[in-house]
Amino acid sequence: MRPPSARDLQDLLDRGRDRQLRLAVTGLSRAGKTAFLTSLVNQLRHAGLEARLDLLPAAREGRLLGARRVDQGDLSVPRFPYDPAMAALTETPPRWPEPTRGISELRLLIRYRPARRGLLGGETRQLTLDLFDYPGEWLLDLPLLGHDYASWSRAQWQGLGPARREHFAAWLAAVAELDPAAPAEEAQLAALAERYAEGLRSAREAGFADLQPGRFLLPGDLEGAPVLQFFPLPGLDDGATKPAPGSNLATLARRFRHYQQRIVKPFYREHFRRFDRQIVLVDLLGALAAGPERFDDLARALGTLMQSFDYGKRSLMNRLFAPRIDRLAIAATKADHVTPEQHPRLVALLEALLAEPLKELRFADVPVKGLSLAAIRATEPQEVTQRGTTSPALRGTLLNGEEALLFPGEVPVRLPERDFWTRQGFDFPAFRPPVIDGGALPHLRLDAALDWLLGDKLQ
Amino acid sequence: MRPPSARDLQDLLDRGRDRQLRLAVTGLSRAGKTAFLTSLVNQLRHAGLEARLDLLPAAREGRLLGARRVDQGDLSVPRFPYDPAMAALTETPPRWPEPTRGISELRLLIRYRPARRGLLGGETRQLTLDLFDYPGEWLLDLPLLGHDYASWSRAQWQGLGPARREHFAAWLAAVAELDPAAPAEEAQLAALAERYAEGLRSAREAGFADLQPGRFLLPGDLEGAPVLQFFPLPGLDDGATKPAPGSNLATLARRFRHYQQRIVKPFYREHFRRFDRQIVLVDLLGALAAGPERFDDLARALGTLMQSFDYGKRSLMNRLFAPRIDRLAIAATKADHVTPEQHPRLVALLEALLAEPLKELRFADVPVKGLSLAAIRATEPQEVTQRGTTSPALRGTLLNGEEALLFPGEVPVRLPERDFWTRQGFDFPAFRPPVIDGGALPHLRLDAALDWLLGDKLQ
Repeated sequence: MRPPSARDLQDLLDRGRDRQLRLAVTGLSRAGKTAFLTSLVNQLRHAGLEARLDLLPAAREGRLLGARRVDQGDLSVPRFPYDPAMAALTETPPRWPEPTRGISELRLLIRYRPARRGLLGGETRQLTLDLFDYPGEWLLDLPLLGHDYASWSRAQWQGLGPARREHFAAWLAAVAELDPAAPAEEAQLAALAERYAEGLRSAREAGFADLQPGRFLLPGDLEGAPVLQFFPLPGLDDGATKPAPGSNLATLARRFRHYQQRIVKPFYREHFRRFDRQIVLVDLLGALAAGPERFDDLARALGTLMQSFDYGKRSLMNRLFAPRIDRLAIAATKADHVTPEQHPRLVALLEALLAEPLKELRFADVPVKGLSLAAIRATEPQEVTQRGTTSPALRGTLLNGEEALLFPGEVPVRLPERDFWTRQGFDFPAFRPPVIDGGALPHLRLDAALDWLLGDKLQ
Repeated sequence: MRPPSARDLQDLLDRGRDRQLRLAVTGLSRAGKTAFLTSLVNQLRHAGLEARLDLLPAAREGRLLGARRVDQGDLSVPRFPYDPAMAALTETPPRWPEPTRGISELRLLIRYRPARRGLLGGETRQLTLDLFDYPGEWLLDLPLLGHDYASWSRAQWQGLGPARREHFAAWLAAVAELDPAAPAEEAQLAALAERYAEGLRSAREAGFADLQPGRFLLPGDLEGAPVLQFFPLPGLDDGATKPAPGSNLATLARRFRHYQQRIVKPFYREHFRRFDRQIVLVDLLGALAAGPERFDDLARALGTLMQSFDYGKRSLMNRLFAPRIDRLAIAATKADHVTPEQHPRLVALLEALLAEPLKELRFADVPVKGLSLAAIRATEPQEVTQRGTTSPALRGTLLNGEEALLFPGEVPVRLPERDFWTRQGFDFPAFRPPVIDGGALPHLRLDAALDWLLGDKLQ
């Protein structure tokens, strides 16, 4: 550990005075993290000018004066690529920004006037907002800490539905040939692990979210390291017999433990534990459009992910780390893909999906809120009258440049039953980002999310 | 820090019994690290069978029984890709293996019979050989630890020759616009740093070696992190005035310090300090063929690189770390590009080039040896008689598949003077790897290197 620098001490001081907030943004792949963070920074920078943030009292009351980017805290963490994202959004035609990889960070200095004026009146205050962006897949690794290698293997095999199984066909055929008791062959294990990683990547491509180990999807500098060369073994019982040293089984188990200790734990210790607030983005509509197995997979992934926020006394999280997140938001993104009157239904469905984890969280007294939003609104709602009936519709530009008028259909408010999937005609195309003319990015209820996540700090 | 595992303790025990050796291989880009390591592993695996290792006594005396790969020590370090390298070399036509990036590791278990038989006779022993491969560019960062930002900036500007300057033209024009005292603009600094990194990459493409900061060339997971977003500033004096907080100058200096503390030092502390032996590979012939500025650049880079092995009492290395490398080899690679009678001249030139650093090293009592070798021999020597005169020549297959007969010319034994460059006709084409028919890879004096680096451990 390095000794604290003058800046670290300043950070500490700011925190003491409640002038610093560390806000983390995550979501499973394609949930819209990059769009969310880009829009969030964009709105705060345009606050007091063009930004529409009526649901954020400090903005509505004209007390939010603006924000500027300053040098971030940890120089070794990549900076969130706000400028490249804005460049993509302002191209002709506009493009969605490139998704971020791994963790990134951005620091904003927010200027505001407090709600109650001090003795001198008219003074301004500053809030240092640290934004963190990290892959939700990393949170899916938490439960892995509660397992040993054998029980983790069994859990992976149980989660293998038919559509998901297809992605692992090559690996399944190959792993059947492996003798757990035979002396480990590094090259063979490496090849099998690569096939397993291919399965995970292909499943993610197909939209599956409940994928472990999370680092296999984004190895970064660990590419080719033995710690990423393990996989679940079929048919392991409770480990009644200790595996022979140097066997395949012993080698896989050793790598699994290394992954727990040197990959999963450090993320929680060095990053996660330091977040004050968190928003989790969920592409609920995408899963709904993709069918029952994908939807169930998302439900399972979210259940797993929520464990990282369960600070109940007996929770894994609380036993291993001392977390401090004091406010949590779960947001269904891409709300601009349904017509406005569906938005409450979208939140209801999100809450139904998360019923169990939300119960745990509330029991553990972690304040949590479900939201629906579109960080960058790509459609316009429209009423269409046909034969005397008025129906809500959406107008937007598809990725191929075609103008489209859509009737996306109805969002179920409860977990969909079997007949929903047979009769559903949920239309969920990908839209091109809107053309921006100078001002702030258009959004849907991003201000409500901001109010929940940092409104109290701007009082 | 994690607690020591059973394996760590076994490692410690093996070291105590002198049964473990940590051998590091490095070299500047294109020096042939991957070929060297691949061939080294290949020779040891074929030892006792087809490998020709007559300069290694244990092999000559039939005591070297072979080697097999075992699970490496640190699972978080990528494994050296021996199998992919051999696959490339055994393709039709053979290809040179892909260069490695960053650090990688491979562990071999060597079986041998000791030279003196014990009481029971015929017993075999094992030596655990840990091989490490890392970019020589990282060693070029050591002197950076002896600088503050201002003196480092000046040193970078001094090293800017005309051919090298060309690669930095875009950056030079842009950095002239930067006001050191102005408040830092993150985006501007990021763009300038990217241009500087482009300059470094383009200079390396052109064969320059003396390039700092080394991590700019291989950022890995640090891509986009502010710690890689600095560069030398022109016209800095000795820092008589302290830069204003938040200014460009203060920001650049802060990042420079972070780079020193969080990038350079950890490499030395966590990896370098643990190496027992080291071989540094140098493409001396390539620099000789490329002309005087490239040759001078290589000389400067090697001088810098050697500082990491200078364990004299007053050396930077000794003051900062407690190194333990007890034997060092410097090898001019690709010796198969000159005819056999030139090899002693090649070693002489290498020693002339390194005269100053070698003097320091010998003074500090670090055993060091200069060698010439070809890890994978791609040519056959041949005598050609024309009009009664016999000249040495080389026969090999060029990269494009053409058979070539070459008269490479003479290697100077002293540092070349100006007239060498004007009259030299040094021919240095790239050859295709040889076609391997089963056995060990053909080489030139790799066994001599092995003898120096690990022969004493096989007695």
